[in-house]
Amino acid sequence: MKLHVPTAKHPYDIFISRCDLKHSASVIRSFSREGRVFVITGRRVATLYRHRITAALRSCSLGVEWLVLADGERHKNLATCERLLTRLSKLGAMRQSLILALGGGVAGDIAGFVAATYMRGIDFIQMPTTLLAQVDSSVGGKTGVDLTTGKNLVGAFHQPRAVLIHTDFLQTLSRRELACGLAEVVKYSAIRDAALLSHLEQRATDILDLKQNLLRQIIHRSCAIKAAIVGRDEKESGERAVLNFGHTLGHAIEALSGFSRIRHGEAVAMGMVFAARLSQRLGYCSYDHAPRLGRLLKRLGLPTAWPAYSRGRYAAAIRKDKKSTNSDIKFILLSRLGRAEPVSVPVKEIVRWL
Amino acid sequence: MKLHVPTAKHPYDIFISRCDLKHSASVIRSFSREGRVFVITGRRVATLYRHRITAALRSCSLGVEWLVLADGERHKNLATCERLLTRLSKLGAMRQSLILALGGGVAGDIAGFVAATYMRGIDFIQMPTTLLAQVDSSVGGKTGVDLTTGKNLVGAFHQPRAVLIHTDFLQTLSRRELACGLAEVVKYSAIRDAALLSHLEQRATDILDLKQNLLRQIIHRSCAIKAAIVGRDEKESGERAVLNFGHTLGHAIEALSGFSRIRHGEAVAMGMVFAARLSQRLGYCSYDHAPRLGRLLKRLGLPTAWPAYSRGRYAAAIRKDKKSTNSDIKFILLSRLGRAEPVSVPVKEIVRWL
Repeated sequence: MKLHVPTAKHPYDIFISRCDLKHSASVIRSFSREGRVFVITGRRVATLYRHRITAALRSCSLGVEWLVLADGERHKNLATCERLLTRLSKLGAMRQSLILALGGGVAGDIAGFVAATYMRGIDFIQMPTTLLAQVDSSVGGKTGVDLTTGKNLVGAFHQPRAVLIHTDFLQTLSRRELACGLAEVVKYSAIRDAALLSHLEQRATDILDLKQNLLRQIIHRSCAIKAAIVGRDEKESGERAVLNFGHTLGHAIEALSGFSRIRHGEAVAMGMVFAARLSQRLGYCSYDHAPRLGRLLKRLGLPTAWPAYSRGRYAAAIRKDKKSTNSDIKFILLSRLGRAEPVSVPVKEIVRWL
Repeated sequence: MKLHVPTAKHPYDIFISRCDLKHSASVIRSFSREGRVFVITGRRVATLYRHRITAALRSCSLGVEWLVLADGERHKNLATCERLLTRLSKLGAMRQSLILALGGGVAGDIAGFVAATYMRGIDFIQMPTTLLAQVDSSVGGKTGVDLTTGKNLVGAFHQPRAVLIHTDFLQTLSRRELACGLAEVVKYSAIRDAALLSHLEQRATDILDLKQNLLRQIIHRSCAIKAAIVGRDEKESGERAVLNFGHTLGHAIEALSGFSRIRHGEAVAMGMVFAARLSQRLGYCSYDHAPRLGRLLKRLGLPTAWPAYSRGRYAAAIRKDKKSTNSDIKFILLSRLGRAEPVSVPVKEIVRWL
């Protein structure tokens, strides 16, 4: 399956297959102007797939250099980037060089930011290995790393030349990692596609059993929704904000819990249930859709009740959000299931309902 | 005097005056969406101008935060950026915030890169204080920092919202710093404007005496040439390469001399004389313009003879240039004084003539 992302300067394609590494290698070859590729990935993914991927790339006459990161979000910082950038320079990477970002969100964010900044920007291709990365972070060109003061505070918009999605990678995911990806799939359905939501409700068990056709279908639909939004608003000046449905509270929960016990997808699940409830409380939709969203998320293995931090702590965490201005925040509300819109809401008004 | 830089997304203006800080503050105010500005600058400039600039900004009802760097190119690295980015975050800088890059090339490059990457890009304004920064680095949106393996290897294209040039800043420059800026002025004349070249020859003494009207004139002409080229080729995919006239050998000389004894402008002066000579040797112009260029550069206080490194060392240094592919390099040659073009030349052929 193939999907087009209509960005302004360098539109690109998303290829979704079960495990067609041969085709992926030929796509990578077609974007390599130098005859080699620099693979940036985490240790775990390197251990699992290094041999197969090297073989596939070599059979396309591509040279391969592996740059392997320590796993974990705590390595997603500028020091790691500096090591990778220096390594690229020592290996003789040029403006014509190509990076392959192989892995989950962390590897993709780091590799993307390295590609965005090495010699003021070189090409890169995303090969996401987690469901979360496949349906969300690998598409749309957001790259970045963390500061000690907050997540993703340093970064760049840098679109990949292609995204290569293999659902076979999902076989090695834990149930928890899978659920985190599904949280974003539920998000797409809530903001844009009520039919997808019903589909997820009907096929929840099969999805958790990794039925391959079904996985490709929901990944395709999720990426199509994101691609259309990103195509219309590449740098988040307007519509793209709806992709943050569930994320305002989600980010606050992640920050307050120290980014460890609660995963991103789990925090987003809690955030969506809250946002759905808030939509009704503030009069943006006439019906409370939160219970239905909550039931689906639970069936997919996600938590829906947010932790009991004080309103003051929630308010402080929400104010640190990148979408925040001085007192208001652009909060994504539902007008119905399948339809979302950004609304300026005072932070005080938000935490009142927590 | 005012000049327009016609970049694609955010065209901007360059304002040239003797010392109209009041007008500059009002321009800064007009771009501040938050009511305050984060000034990033070096220690020396902060000592000289902090009070005056703070007063001017405050009188426009702007809040001011100063982020002061250690002086010197050796601090132009990712560690410095991380400190600045973290400081911005702690001060509560938001996507709507505005950075003022105040200083020479180093401060401008760092502040620009910080602006390019903080929350994936916020606005910034350049207020260059050296002639080199006024005629070159503050215009065109190149930002970046060094790695231990080479200069400006990490960076981003990020256009400022405005460039505010005050020729009074030049009063505190050393003769040597002034000459380094003049090297780039000579470059503009060599690649695009033979009349400017004659003008520089006739008025060399007055320029070195900092005659204000004359300075504003040559800065205006230099920025106009750069603005037109950058407007047509923002990200250096073609024409912009001509701005590297003298820079291929220049960068190699800087690298081989350890970036300390020989300044950028001095290395570029040597590189231009060599490039002019090479243009004739390779048959791109019928007449050897190198002696005339050399005479002018010497009158302006610049060296023109390159150091006697071996051809092998020069070749290795040139191959590391960002414009290098595997064996060739895009070298800027003159077809006559006032006209330059990029030509693919084998590195071997270049060093033959050294």
